[in-house]
Amino acid sequence: MTSVYALTDHIVIDEYAQNVLFREARTANAFTDEPVTDEQVHAIYDLIKWAPTSFNQQPLRVVLVRTPEARERLVSLMVDSNRAKTRRAPLTAILAADTEFHEHLPTQFPVFPQAKDVFFADPAVREASARMNAALQIGYFILGIRAAGLAAGPMSGFDAGAVDREFFPDGRSRSLVVVNIGRPGPDASWDRLLRLAPEQVFTTV
Amino acid sequence: MTSVYALTDHIVIDEYAQNVLFREARTANAFTDEPVTDEQVHAIYDLIKWAPTSFNQQPLRVVLVRTPEARERLVSLMVDSNRAKTRRAPLTAILAADTEFHEHLPTQFPVFPQAKDVFFADPAVREASARMNAALQIGYFILGIRAAGLAAGPMSGFDAGAVDREFFPDGRSRSLVVVNIGRPGPDASWDRLLRLAPEQVFTTV
Repeated sequence: MTSVYALTDHIVIDEYAQNVLFREARTANAFTDEPVTDEQVHAIYDLIKWAPTSFNQQPLRVVLVRTPEARERLVSLMVDSNRAKTRRAPLTAILAADTEFHEHLPTQFPVFPQAKDVFFADPAVREASARMNAALQIGYFILGIRAAGLAAGPMSGFDAGAVDREFFPDGRSRSLVVVNIGRPGPDASWDRLLRLAPEQVFTTV
Repeated sequence: MTSVYALTDHIVIDEYAQNVLFREARTANAFTDEPVTDEQVHAIYDLIKWAPTSFNQQPLRVVLVRTPEARERLVSLMVDSNRAKTRRAPLTAILAADTEFHEHLPTQFPVFPQAKDVFFADPAVREASARMNAALQIGYFILGIRAAGLAAGPMSGFDAGAVDREFFPDGRSRSLVVVNIGRPGPDASWDRLLRLAPEQVFTTV
């Protein structure tokens, strides 16, 4: 491995964007009181919606938790360690996969409108594809939150089945991640954790 | 919804970065002959490795397919429509989830070193978590390819079980996406497909 300074020569977005999205951005566990508006959320979506999914299926569905009643219902379904920070975040979003995404394929993937029935008739195939592609979009969404100058606090510690029943009563969606969104407050983050070395991640054949 | 011009006011990375990562970037199906070096791939990883995963688990594993023999083995396991473009891409990477990621938690998540055994002793729980978090990282990786000025051609059309047996013989990893990487060639992309409207994605409670 060469040094980081040499490696950044291969990156074409500027240092500010690299820092905001990746190098200096941190998962936040505490936030200021500054609200996060619907317009900010829509600006995030308007950016990240362009990133790719398989067959352009776009299975990500988002519930924005805004009322105190809804927030308390969500908090009660989270593990203890996620409760206080979720209660106090300016905005909390439930990120889920729509297992019936294929209904949109005739308009979203017109190059092969039969994809809906040819590839996605089987509910098990559909759910696996929805989970994988919604997770791709959650990756994009987390970076989109950062691109909007905000911090994300993504969490997987909650009762997903209960969250599905409570917040997706039509039974179509599977909640994958709950994310707190806002400006980071004092002591918002832990010390930076390690990352795996390239040798632990890459092999060449 | 306000217009796109107003929405971009909420985004803090510059227009060039927005375009390179999201707005103008396109999935590529054809590439120039320009090679993609290991140093470029390591620069991508050195950027995207910082983005978050649950318990800092970092389950993404990557096989870089460089020899003609390995490429032909991979191509033979792909659906017909993915074969020609994969045969001709400067670099093809297999992106997979390591179901034994928990072995690294004592070093990667030292704030709760017991996580390895307390949360991830069950192989089914571990595989689901690995798949979800590797998919997050694949989202980051696709954007990282673009941040390096390259185009990504991610594909899900391949025999994943056979790819696992062929390229991950230790049985630990599950292949999720195969991605071609390079500079886009002539007629590399389709016309831009639609995206879902915010009203189809967001609900507020």
